[in-house]
Amino acid sequence: MAGVIEDRVGAFVPGPRAEVPGALEGPLAGLDFAVKDLFDVAGVPTTYGNPDWARTHPPAAGTAPVILALLQAGATLRGKTRTVELAYGLTGENVWHGTPTNPAAPDRFPGGSSCGSAAAVAAGLVDFALGSDTGGSVRIPASYCGIFGIRPSWGAVSLTGACPLGPSFDVAGWFARSATVLRQVGGVVLPPGGEDRLGPLLRVQEAWMNAVPATAAALAGTLGAVERLLGPALPVNLVPETLDQLYENFRLAQAQEAWTSLGSWIEATRPAFGPGVGERFAAAKAVEPARAAEARRIGAAFRSRVRALLAGGAVLAYPTSPVAAPRLDTPPEGQQAVRERTMGVTAIAGLGGLCEVSLPAAKAEGAPVGLSLVAAPGRDRALLALAEEVAAELRLGA
Amino acid sequence: MAGVIEDRVGAFVPGPRAEVPGALEGPLAGLDFAVKDLFDVAGVPTTYGNPDWARTHPPAAGTAPVILALLQAGATLRGKTRTVELAYGLTGENVWHGTPTNPAAPDRFPGGSSCGSAAAVAAGLVDFALGSDTGGSVRIPASYCGIFGIRPSWGAVSLTGACPLGPSFDVAGWFARSATVLRQVGGVVLPPGGEDRLGPLLRVQEAWMNAVPATAAALAGTLGAVERLLGPALPVNLVPETLDQLYENFRLAQAQEAWTSLGSWIEATRPAFGPGVGERFAAAKAVEPARAAEARRIGAAFRSRVRALLAGGAVLAYPTSPVAAPRLDTPPEGQQAVRERTMGVTAIAGLGGLCEVSLPAAKAEGAPVGLSLVAAPGRDRALLALAEEVAAELRLGA
Repeated sequence: MAGVIEDRVGAFVPGPRAEVPGALEGPLAGLDFAVKDLFDVAGVPTTYGNPDWARTHPPAAGTAPVILALLQAGATLRGKTRTVELAYGLTGENVWHGTPTNPAAPDRFPGGSSCGSAAAVAAGLVDFALGSDTGGSVRIPASYCGIFGIRPSWGAVSLTGACPLGPSFDVAGWFARSATVLRQVGGVVLPPGGEDRLGPLLRVQEAWMNAVPATAAALAGTLGAVERLLGPALPVNLVPETLDQLYENFRLAQAQEAWTSLGSWIEATRPAFGPGVGERFAAAKAVEPARAAEARRIGAAFRSRVRALLAGGAVLAYPTSPVAAPRLDTPPEGQQAVRERTMGVTAIAGLGGLCEVSLPAAKAEGAPVGLSLVAAPGRDRALLALAEEVAAELRLGA
Repeated sequence: MAGVIEDRVGAFVPGPRAEVPGALEGPLAGLDFAVKDLFDVAGVPTTYGNPDWARTHPPAAGTAPVILALLQAGATLRGKTRTVELAYGLTGENVWHGTPTNPAAPDRFPGGSSCGSAAAVAAGLVDFALGSDTGGSVRIPASYCGIFGIRPSWGAVSLTGACPLGPSFDVAGWFARSATVLRQVGGVVLPPGGEDRLGPLLRVQEAWMNAVPATAAALAGTLGAVERLLGPALPVNLVPETLDQLYENFRLAQAQEAWTSLGSWIEATRPAFGPGVGERFAAAKAVEPARAAEARRIGAAFRSRVRALLAGGAVLAYPTSPVAAPRLDTPPEGQQAVRERTMGVTAIAGLGGLCEVSLPAAKAEGAPVGLSLVAAPGRDRALLALAEEVAAELRLGA
């Protein structure tokens, strides 16, 4: 791709476009990409989606190693993409830069926090885009925009040169319209190994029950395609607590880390925030240490259990998000309800440190919904290979 | 224990008692044991439960290595125990030697085929006893007689000097009244390793649904004790086919092997058999190779799936047998119904090559029922340690 990319969906950060040509040869040669504006590119401001953050931080001194790896592999950086402020939100709204349009459902939110990266890929502006995911920030926009997205195993991909939100949950992830490109990017940025074929397939009952009927019905056929490859899904209940409790434990642990990471800057700067963001940080500040410690203890127990369950190669399957993207006119309390219902599911991989791929599987009531396949930490390469097989089976993203 | 053991339950093979003193020192010093009469003891006839087998085979030239290991560890052999003829039956009936009495429920079958070993342990005649298990022949009498029993991982314990039934399913197992003794025997006969702590706990839904309500209710408290140690059980459906289909696949594969192992002797000898045994061998002879091959293929797929599920340390929990021991006056068709319903559950570890411990958990309608804990191949030592912990939690077998 050459020339200026016309940003018809509002995916890029306003202002001059950060462009860096990639190597002439390499496994990603000829591919264009974008990066969420919480990754550093040398000489360019990192806005983190918030004008006060941009104002109080100098332009980046260096480029994030994950971006350098992509450039060295031949991909060309075409710009930095919009993010929810400080990555602390799931709808994709940004009142300062503008909320990107969801190319697959323009009357609905694109999902976030990696909203611009998802929109840029879904609109065909770039071949792939980097995002980050703490509580669902790659998986949810992938599901909402009808594209592939991966939340890799925690720690698998470098986060050097990326702004932190909840360091024990933060991961770098990416989006693509094609499962093959999704896998090719993994080939460059993931550590080697973890390629043994996955199975058996486990159908996480509570996550399917948590989905609205239209979502569950829309994804049945996609699950069937995975079953043709891995054999019939075995139903399992994964969460001894309810999903609501899992969400609450995740929320408390994440919130405490968010305040640890960003509270001193917030207290010193008193930044202006768009709707919801300031409230979430205020709640993060108010988390009682004893409750956060208890949440972390429960989360650690869940993590060790789910990891043991998946250690032999089992794959979880469930709807990435329980509902399609909310409409843009959804009132705040409706958004909050969707957020809570969604994060009980996204907390599974978040607390477990698992790798999760969302496949653009189907449409429910006219808007995309994704199917997630989830595997043990370190099995990212096998999971990406499986996603490619499923996509071929379904003739997705061809 | 010294002197002649009074066989008040008909556990031993009639005739002179095969006795061999153990080493004076060792981890099993001071313990008495018995062995199912399909294991060789040098100089002693191995009857395999059938007079024609005894008549057509010379006394054993050597002693089975697993018996030698127990003797070297200090245990004393006090005799050989009754078995279902050629180990091909689950009730424990033997019309030639007499059916052992179930000490825990004298009006009911003791279970088989390792009936004499279970009865000898349950009656307190010996501290532990060796049996063998192809389709449930240790697990079922353990459950019926209210004692501990283990079916080890396939291949973990030597079967040299033991008569074969279905070689790809046959394993040597053992019984004890105490989980500590059960574990101590494992310490002698199992290969080293596999001691990492187990978890999470998975509640196999179809096996609980397959149990009659009285069994499921009786075992709820036992499962609760395991949950106190391993955390709440996660419900899982393990068998994509029904348990009936799993049983049918197991039965066909086992039957074909039984005929391969014993058909030429049966054709040459035309032995007299008690009720049911001859019919089962006739059915085994009639198995079509194509159907057996298909059953074996399905079994292999199940094996790889369940092993992958358990590879990280997960433990399955379910009732060892769906019902307590049938009453002695149960007509043949009733016995057959119990057999089919039981072997859908025992086929899980049989097809999987898994290790399974049955705990003498509770009584249902006045007769014992066992709870099984099941783990991946090679994790026998961890499973025995877990059984000991559960027994301590429940103050069982003290």
